Amino acid sequence: MTDAIDIMPSDLIGGEIVAGVDIGGTNTAVGFVGEDGRVILRSTFPTGGRGTAGEFVDLLSRTIRWMAEKLPSHASLRAIGMAAPAADGRTGMLESPANLNWGSVDLAAMVRERFDLPVAITNDANAALLGEMYYGAAQGMSNVTMITLGTGLGVGAVINGALVLGAHGAAGEFGHITMAVEGRFCGCGRRGCAETYVSAPGLRRTVFELLALRLEESALRHISFSSLTAEDVSKHALQGDTLATEAFNITGWYLGRLIADVALAFDPEAVILFGGLMNAGDLLVVPARRSFEEHALAIARGRIRILVSALNDGRAAILGASRLVRDALLEQCP
Amino acid sequence: MTDAIDIMPSDLIGGEIVAGVDIGGTNTAVGFVGEDGRVILRSTFPTGGRGTAGEFVDLLSRTIRWMAEKLPSHASLRAIGMAAPAADGRTGMLESPANLNWGSVDLAAMVRERFDLPVAITNDANAALLGEMYYGAAQGMSNVTMITLGTGLGVGAVINGALVLGAHGAAGEFGHITMAVEGRFCGCGRRGCAETYVSAPGLRRTVFELLALRLEESALRHISFSSLTAEDVSKHALQGDTLATEAFNITGWYLGRLIADVALAFDPEAVILFGGLMNAGDLLVVPARRSFEEHALAIARGRIRILVSALNDGRAAILGASRLVRDALLEQCP
Repeated sequence: MTDAIDIMPSDLIGGEIVAGVDIGGTNTAVGFVGEDGRVILRSTFPTGGRGTAGEFVDLLSRTIRWMAEKLPSHASLRAIGMAAPAADGRTGMLESPANLNWGSVDLAAMVRERFDLPVAITNDANAALLGEMYYGAAQGMSNVTMITLGTGLGVGAVINGALVLGAHGAAGEFGHITMAVEGRFCGCGRRGCAETYVSAPGLRRTVFELLALRLEESALRHISFSSLTAEDVSKHALQGDTLATEAFNITGWYLGRLIADVALAFDPEAVILFGGLMNAGDLLVVPARRSFEEHALAIARGRIRILVSALNDGRAAILGASRLVRDALLEQCP
Repeated sequence: MTDAIDIMPSDLIGGEIVAGVDIGGTNTAVGFVGEDGRVILRSTFPTGGRGTAGEFVDLLSRTIRWMAEKLPSHASLRAIGMAAPAADGRTGMLESPANLNWGSVDLAAMVRERFDLPVAITNDANAALLGEMYYGAAQGMSNVTMITLGTGLGVGAVINGALVLGAHGAAGEFGHITMAVEGRFCGCGRRGCAETYVSAPGLRRTVFELLALRLEESALRHISFSSLTAEDVSKHALQGDTLATEAFNITGWYLGRLIADVALAFDPEAVILFGGLMNAGDLLVVPARRSFEEHALAIARGRIRILVSALNDGRAAILGASRLVRDALLEQCP
């Protein structure tokens, strides 16, 4: 297994500990979260998406027990909250997530069998949004939308203070809104979906479109499609590569349009941008803000705040997943 | 003033009567609604949008008093609910509606001054949605979206049983989602908005695009842009005019795409189509359903019901407006 970090002096650790589990396509992170929202213990292990869901749950359970043994005697693990791609917050089912070879499984029930504790699950975008609401940029807001930008694009929304789960667990699939009829082919079988433009692979596709279209020299001409990363594009843009910069401008233009559409759907106080692609910072945020003001309806212009996540990637989902069950614990108390 | 209709035998009229007021660009309808949701008395008058808001409120107040005099002695008017385009359900403000020359006014406060009764206001799409939820096609649903199709296109959504009002009262402006970059010019100052394709004027624009593009004979070649109505297009389509039929097919194609986008945003149990353009019935619904199945993400296909309003135009908004204040009355009672 792996390292436990941030072990705090035991007198700072509260009594009721909740585990937040962030299941990613590559790695899974487990955080033990205290009553004040501090991550007091943290561990990561490879998700092993090519194995079975049972093997994953075995490894997760061993990790959680190993961590629980490290708790001081006055503290105890009281509940487990999980965040996973394609998790349906209503049913607890994981519906054939793209990067995990598990099919459709009731992961929450499998974990519940191994621990006599409350277990809940939601998708990663919703968990990150909960994390931001309780501990990050969205504190105090009751209408807020999050756009997660990484390998894909997800949208999580809170309306009237409650997460939008939808009638079929499909709310948040807004990354598949059609932005260009006859546009880029999407993994969902359709064309022109937002995430084919606004995501790490979308940025890469834009780079290659520009390499085909333009004549100018660029460091990106020496990198193959399969080895190019969003970090490469960032690095060269910061070094003055105009083609790399233009790729961010175009991606930001689409992102700003998407934020304008999100604003029309949910009319939030703020849109929070989150995920790996946001490491690009102003390279993406500046053109996105410009494009939002250009595309937004007059009533939304200048009124909807566009914020970048205040929590780093790993922490938001762990904290949000922990809130899922922390609230359930609170509700149980009379 | 005008006719009172549907005067019921007085022993069928319950004690607590609520007025539902549907303020349209052309006419305003007032319905007195009984506790069982029946419209027991109804009156309409010209809205007079070129006059002042004060003149309108005077006329509305006289109409309501005139109607109240007709109530049997054991019944009394207890509250007034109103629906108006561009009404902000949070603040009660009417924000410069397009067809009314009133600027930004607090219509609810003006009506409240004249009656010592609870008065509430919301926009017309939300009111129609409330009407459908309590008395129409959306009974029993807690996640449902309504698309209103008339001179413009509005979207109302109920999430987790509550109306989505938004942080700035702008939720529901989804008719301005961009469906075609560099597309048709929109009254909002932008281009390619959904309502430039999916609305009565959108249908008309599609007809004229087809008249320019194609060679075939059509009865629509003899009607000017300004005099063409959606009813004309319906009539000729039903008589076998292929160009008129094609205009509906194209409008339905955009509508189906829009429903797919709405499904991604809100993931409702059903999308309810409402408004004057829906008089076209299957001419529009059949191609819209086909286009929805083509454009929807796999998770939504075949799972989201596309329904046509079960209440006629006038009634849904009156009933919905009445529910706004009926619920408030219920809450007041211990």
